[in-house]
Amino acid sequence: MTAEKKNTNIRVSLPAVCIVWQISMIILFGIFIRYDAESDAHWLEKKPKNISAIENDFYFRYPSFQDVHVMVFVGFGFLMTFLKRYSFGGVGFNFLIAAFGLQWALLMQGWFHHLGDDGKISINVYSMINADFCVAGCLIAYGALLGKVSPVQLMVLTLFGVTLFAVEEYIILNLIYAKDAGGSMVIHTFGAYYGLAISWMLYRPNLDQSSRLQGSVYHSDVFAMIGTLFLWMFWPSFNSAITEHGDGQHRAAINTYLSLASTVLTAVAVSSVFQKHGKLDMVHIQNATLAGGVAVGTAAEFMLMPYGSLIVGFCCGILSTLGYIYITPFLEKHLKIQDTCGIHNLHAMPGVIGGIVGAITAAAASESVYGTEGIKLFKFPPAQQGGHQAGALCVALCFGIGGGILVGAILRLPIWGDPADDNCFDDESYWEVRGRFEFFKNVFAVWITLQYITSFLNVK
Amino acid sequence: MTAEKKNTNIRVSLPAVCIVWQISMIILFGIFIRYDAESDAHWLEKKPKNISAIENDFYFRYPSFQDVHVMVFVGFGFLMTFLKRYSFGGVGFNFLIAAFGLQWALLMQGWFHHLGDDGKISINVYSMINADFCVAGCLIAYGALLGKVSPVQLMVLTLFGVTLFAVEEYIILNLIYAKDAGGSMVIHTFGAYYGLAISWMLYRPNLDQSSRLQGSVYHSDVFAMIGTLFLWMFWPSFNSAITEHGDGQHRAAINTYLSLASTVLTAVAVSSVFQKHGKLDMVHIQNATLAGGVAVGTAAEFMLMPYGSLIVGFCCGILSTLGYIYITPFLEKHLKIQDTCGIHNLHAMPGVIGGIVGAITAAAASESVYGTEGIKLFKFPPAQQGGHQAGALCVALCFGIGGGILVGAILRLPIWGDPADDNCFDDESYWEVRGRFEFFKNVFAVWITLQYITSFLNVK
Amino acid sequence: MTAEKKNTNIRVSLPAVCIVWQISMIILFGIFIRYDAESDAHWLEKKPKNISAIENDFYFRYPSFQDVHVMVFVGFGFLMTFLKRYSFGGVGFNFLIAAFGLQWALLMQGWFHHLGDDGKISINVYSMINADFCVAGCLIAYGALLGKVSPVQLMVLTLFGVTLFAVEEYIILNLIYAKDAGGSMVIHTFGAYYGLAISWMLYRPNLDQSSRLQGSVYHSDVFAMIGTLFLWMFWPSFNSAITEHGDGQHRAAINTYLSLASTVLTAVAVSSVFQKHGKLDMVHIQNATLAGGVAVGTAAEFMLMPYGSLIVGFCCGILSTLGYIYITPFLEKHLKIQDTCGIHNLHAMPGVIGGIVGAITAAAASESVYGTEGIKLFKFPPAQQGGHQAGALCVALCFGIGGGILVGAILRLPIWGDPADDNCFDDESYWEVRGRFEFFKNVFAVWITLQYITSFLNVK
Repeated sequence: MTAEKKNTNIRVSLPAVCIVWQISMIILFGIFIRYDAESDAHWLEKKPKNISAIENDFYFRYPSFQDVHVMVFVGFGFLMTFLKRYSFGGVGFNFLIAAFGLQWALLMQGWFHHLGDDGKISINVYSMINADFCVAGCLIAYGALLGKVSPVQLMVLTLFGVTLFAVEEYIILNLIYAKDAGGSMVIHTFGAYYGLAISWMLYRPNLDQSSRLQGSVYHSDVFAMIGTLFLWMFWPSFNSAITEHGDGQHRAAINTYLSLASTVLTAVAVSSVFQKHGKLDMVHIQNATLAGGVAVGTAAEFMLMPYGSLIVGFCCGILSTLGYIYITPFLEKHLKIQDTCGIHNLHAMPGVIGGIVGAITAAAASESVYGTEGIKLFKFPPAQQGGHQAGALCVALCFGIGGGILVGAILRLPIWGDPADDNCFDDESYWEVRGRFEFFKNVFAVWITLQYITSFLNVK
Repeated sequence: MTAEKKNTNIRVSLPAVCIVWQISMIILFGIFIRYDAESDAHWLEKKPKNISAIENDFYFRYPSFQDVHVMVFVGFGFLMTFLKRYSFGGVGFNFLIAAFGLQWALLMQGWFHHLGDDGKISINVYSMINADFCVAGCLIAYGALLGKVSPVQLMVLTLFGVTLFAVEEYIILNLIYAKDAGGSMVIHTFGAYYGLAISWMLYRPNLDQSSRLQGSVYHSDVFAMIGTLFLWMFWPSFNSAITEHGDGQHRAAINTYLSLASTVLTAVAVSSVFQKHGKLDMVHIQNATLAGGVAVGTAAEFMLMPYGSLIVGFCCGILSTLGYIYITPFLEKHLKIQDTCGIHNLHAMPGVIGGIVGAITAAAASESVYGTEGIKLFKFPPAQQGGHQAGALCVALCFGIGGGILVGAILRLPIWGDPADDNCFDDESYWEVRGRFEFFKNVFAVWITLQYITSFLNVK
Repeated sequence: MTAEKKNTNIRVSLPAVCIVWQISMIILFGIFIRYDAESDAHWLEKKPKNISAIENDFYFRYPSFQDVHVMVFVGFGFLMTFLKRYSFGGVGFNFLIAAFGLQWALLMQGWFHHLGDDGKISINVYSMINADFCVAGCLIAYGALLGKVSPVQLMVLTLFGVTLFAVEEYIILNLIYAKDAGGSMVIHTFGAYYGLAISWMLYRPNLDQSSRLQGSVYHSDVFAMIGTLFLWMFWPSFNSAITEHGDGQHRAAINTYLSLASTVLTAVAVSSVFQKHGKLDMVHIQNATLAGGVAVGTAAEFMLMPYGSLIVGFCCGILSTLGYIYITPFLEKHLKIQDTCGIHNLHAMPGVIGGIVGAITAAAASESVYGTEGIKLFKFPPAQQGGHQAGALCVALCFGIGGGILVGAILRLPIWGDPADDNCFDDESYWEVRGRFEFFKNVFAVWITLQYITSFLNVK
């Protein structure tokens, strides 16, 4: 009752941020963004005579794009509905920041990767996949902060997150020449440490005040399984979406499919063995079953071999589940990092493992395994490429942690409308929640019924 | 207690309609419908030697078809589960009328567009997309009537709706030669005004009697977000599904992707600014975020430019949210139009805007922008094409309003088993609802518990 | 209170099975499984010069694979969430056994179908589809046992189920040379009778003790509709996923689309006509609407004709719904087969019908209908092919029933941790269920409120 009451009124700040930033997007798109050759109406005229309309890259990228799109909006969105009273915020704010982030990502990634001689950025379906990838990094970061920040803070997190991502990605892919098709380093390691560092900066020592809401109810856990399954099913598309056409894309899908299958079994095993009577914990099933997809991201397009994928998934299912049991409480208690969704177990650790697996696999590459053409996948000789891969992992870590501390400092300013400790994990802060009085209506109905029965008994 | 009780018994009418109409479909399909060249077993023999099996159009249309299919059944279906006690009716009747409508659409659209010299209609994956499109018009109309009509009325609505749609579409595409790839006019404007006119004809002055059910509960709002997100994610497929292969299809997907992203931000902004403390309203997030997809439908395949798409989405997000706040109550109070899902804000207004944007963009086309080949997208010179586009919008409006009044008159007959006012928005009317007595069981359990505690206290 | 209490502790057995079997998979994959030519890094070197990277079969199978993948994990998974307190087990154990089954299926099917001269199995996207198909058979069997078995039993069921499936499939496709693109016989008939035979072996005479949990609640029925719709929408992909490229695949999608549409109308009709006031039953809408997809599986790639597909769907919608009303109670009462999800109505009967329709359609094939090239779809002359199809149906039945009895006998051993009768259909047995005490908290809150009100009234 005497708890500090923070002002969560965002009636000025949220609309202002949305409108001003969206207008900025329109202006910047007007100046910079154009259709690329294959999506421009001149294509018919200018395309080589010997290729037909159905060879437009649209037909070979668009199904992958849609799968990634589902992962970003339904996958991440529903995975975050598991809290009993924060499902609106989970899926709704995910929607908002992804919709903003993808526009800003088209610009940022465009400036770094697709700026033409005329100063224009050319976009196509490939850019859309990359924009969704970039957004995924910020959504991972949101997972650590779920329920504890305002939508305005999330918009700021996304603005800086996308910016940092684009620079980090440019360094890793274009300066270091590391390979990272599924983004174990670029997306998952960066995104997770970015979110964890912000969470560390925004540490709330008295958060247990709202602990009655920091958990799931039966149906919110089923909703979260929608997110889990769509992430799990479409992860092969995620890891193969931007690889070169041909065998690499084919192989990336196979490796991810296998790694994820293996993860499910070990996540179940560890979840069961650490619980009384061997009961399974929904938190592990919802999250740790996905760790194999993260960890196979970098090496998915390499000749990891089917059994290699199974081994990666095997280890990550165990490690990730153990993370939920031991490491998350440890981080909160000793390192002051509160991680609502456990992104450290689902993205950070598997992402780092993915980077290491990628470095080792690249270092072990040989012409006998890859063929004279296939080996050209790597820019450098194997050992050197392995070094570059390891370097890339460090870059992702630095950008994540450093960027997170910086952005966390900004988000500590007392102007963002974040909730007080006892309003965390509660949709009431930022949403009109209907049916609030259902409970009291029920109480009243029970009371009336009881009165009736009592009076009837008394009379008798 | 003294309220008029209508007879909602549909035990004869619903089975009769389903069986008789399905048998009619079988007979008509037997007479008219055949596989087209690419889906007939003679294809192997008759196809040109220089094209291979993987150039069958199936591979270039089927992914788009499946995305549209998901929008029709999961997208529209789950968007209508938001009512606290009408989720079965929302997703279930959507399923029923879509399954009937697509068969009737294959026939109606076939007669107008694909009737061969032999009097047979040839169908393929392209026909399936068009049938789904046609059905979407009727599902939009259902949105205005959700909770207030019987499934038999919905079947009648669909029978006439598909018929009117096919005629309207033929006039717009084949007589006026307007372009409408994403159906802003053909699907959304028509469907929305069709539904609104029917709702006007079926006006219920005392509907507030069931107002206790005309709202959402926490979990029904999360279910509706499944519908919202699948519509939002796959809308780029919807607007590009039937365009010519090549750059046009590619461009339509990009434009829709951008327009929808922009809409989310302005819908959030307006939702927040009009509510106390800036809280967001789930109704707006579920619906207004989609308006940009509707409004960019006609012009999606044109050279609207990326920033143009953002502008369209920007305006529609604002307009649609304002519609939910001001126009829906106005329509109900002053024009006697009750619009359960707010289709006026999501489909009618954005559809009309889409038609206007299409007319302007077509009128502004030039050979320098489109190229000598690209400009052939339009049948007429720019200015004239713009006029044709505007004419098409009028046709869609007339068919919607006129057809709706006609069908509404039919649906007012007292034979369809529609619910009384105080049974509206209640699944009990047409569904076996289990767990009805859960509440009373709980009350009983509470009572027993209390008795036990009381007696314990008394003894002490 | 005196009911026998079984030990559902699986803290040793479940982790042991998961870890040991997963390690076995890794070893077997290491020995046997390799990338095929199109997913190996040597492809670039070795592929014929005149084909380009985008002609990799990945691009023509992967969208179908993803649709099938969604059916297996979200479709089957969510269809089984309908029970009021077994949603975790429905979607979670489905996830577990599918993830294990697909690995074992890659090996089993590989040994029978893709074993090279070097003793290695080559896998690609086509193998992934087939593995998912194989798993589907076991998931169907799970439907009969839902809520009555332990996850360890399900792992055993899957191990043997996949093994039997691979042998049965080899006999049907490679020895008998029957065609079965959508698996009416190979998947549905086998899987359903396998599950029913196991259920017969595990008959529980006193199951009504847990009958309070053997039903749905409002929201669990809406969850199940997610499963229904994703199965329904993607079934055209299922039935066409492994057909030859070209017209056959195109035709299979069309036939399935039509058959399913027809089924919806007759399922609704029969559901309505057998209920008081014509009310619809969610059980029928969730299940019987899918029967047409099962029944058209074998003949989907044949020249069944569009009206033929409608007829198949028409009959199966009626039969399947009648099955739920009459046959399921009969099976339980007189044949001692308890079938939780009614797989007899959704998979067994429609699967057998599908086999018969396939045999008749094949026997009626002619060169005038199929063309000289098209007729080569069949290995034998029409009449003989029809005989082979009928023989294949018998094989599927024998493997299903025989295998089920065998595996059922194994599952009766008292070592698997299955639940006592009064713990069936209850997630508490195998899952940490949070919010267990919500009810008592509510009761307490009501009591406090009542005390307050009462004291207030007394004072007055």
